[in-house]
Amino acid sequence: MIRDKLRAQMDFLNEIEKLKVVYRQNGTIGGTRRENSAEHSWHVALMALTLQEYAPAGTDIAKVMKMLLIHDLVEIYTGDTFLYDEKGREKVKEPEKKAAEKLFAMLPEEQEEEFNRLWNEFEDRQTQEARFALVLDNLQPIMNHYTTENENIAGKKLNRSQIIEKKSFIKDYSTELWEYALEVIDNSVELGLYGEG
Amino acid sequence: MIRDKLRAQMDFLNEIEKLKVVYRQNGTIGGTRRENSAEHSWHVALMALTLQEYAPAGTDIAKVMKMLLIHDLVEIYTGDTFLYDEKGREKVKEPEKKAAEKLFAMLPEEQEEEFNRLWNEFEDRQTQEARFALVLDNLQPIMNHYTTENENIAGKKLNRSQIIEKKSFIKDYSTELWEYALEVIDNSVELGLYGEG
Repeated sequence: MIRDKLRAQMDFLNEIEKLKVVYRQNGTIGGTRRENSAEHSWHVALMALTLQEYAPAGTDIAKVMKMLLIHDLVEIYTGDTFLYDEKGREKVKEPEKKAAEKLFAMLPEEQEEEFNRLWNEFEDRQTQEARFALVLDNLQPIMNHYTTENENIAGKKLNRSQIIEKKSFIKDYSTELWEYALEVIDNSVELGLYGEG
Repeated sequence: MIRDKLRAQMDFLNEIEKLKVVYRQNGTIGGTRRENSAEHSWHVALMALTLQEYAPAGTDIAKVMKMLLIHDLVEIYTGDTFLYDEKGREKVKEPEKKAAEKLFAMLPEEQEEEFNRLWNEFEDRQTQEARFALVLDNLQPIMNHYTTENENIAGKKLNRSQIIEKKSFIKDYSTELWEYALEVIDNSVELGLYGEG
């Protein structure tokens, strides 16, 4: 007899299969399809592991990785909302919180609490783990656009200034990471992926 | 000036973008494309977090997650080799080891060593972290086939007995996980995804 607990955990793990078909504005190499939120989450989790020395001493990197692995799960129910869609981002906050509660309620109680806690910690952006996760979540799309030469961003080009406005908070976190981000943004402008304005 | 170290780390993180276009024999919901190794890695890492209580006490789950996030990176250079392709699996072992060395050599020395160590530990299947990772890596495709109703496995159907032969080592690890695996396999036979033989 399979215990209810294991069945609940497996039902959750089968449910999140859906994240692989939630598509983002980013591209993939070769340009045949858009990036999805599951592979994006994998990429940022590996960024946390690789770039951990740029986080302040004492940052719990395993926690950052967990946060990044689950941060987009709510999109199973809400879809991905483009970072530059200000009104959309504001409107989706409450539905995303409800989506997290609905999804994590599939899990046994202790895990439901743990996953909700991790998800809310990321959203609240207050702890050093959440701040590092947010920096990586904002660096990855810039790197993706350049690496995949992705022009098809929400059907129209972004301008350099729009990107810098959204991403410049990275500077306060790490001047080194920001310097790299700026270089990638400028390389993308040169490639014609972003407008110069 | 961006330091060489950061540039090396970022070059590595851009290189692994390629894993998103390494496709496996698994499917995705809706059936429009095959699953890739990056989103598979995301899924098994979250399985480690969710199912950690089925690993023996003292298993380092953060290490299991790291292992699973990097275990398929070699496929950037070798492609994915189907588990049921015995000759192919044997032949690819040496190229995969070389691929790991080539890829991880992009990283600063300490990280190169760490990633090689993690990758080899998974391949050697000796530690309790590697064994748990291997169990999850073998459970996920069964769950994926059923959830996505994926019939298009290497162009021809697998039989129930073939799958059980490959996966029955899970029984020695956890009778509970194996019981669940058997149920999913039988459900898939009933759906017509696997042959009855």
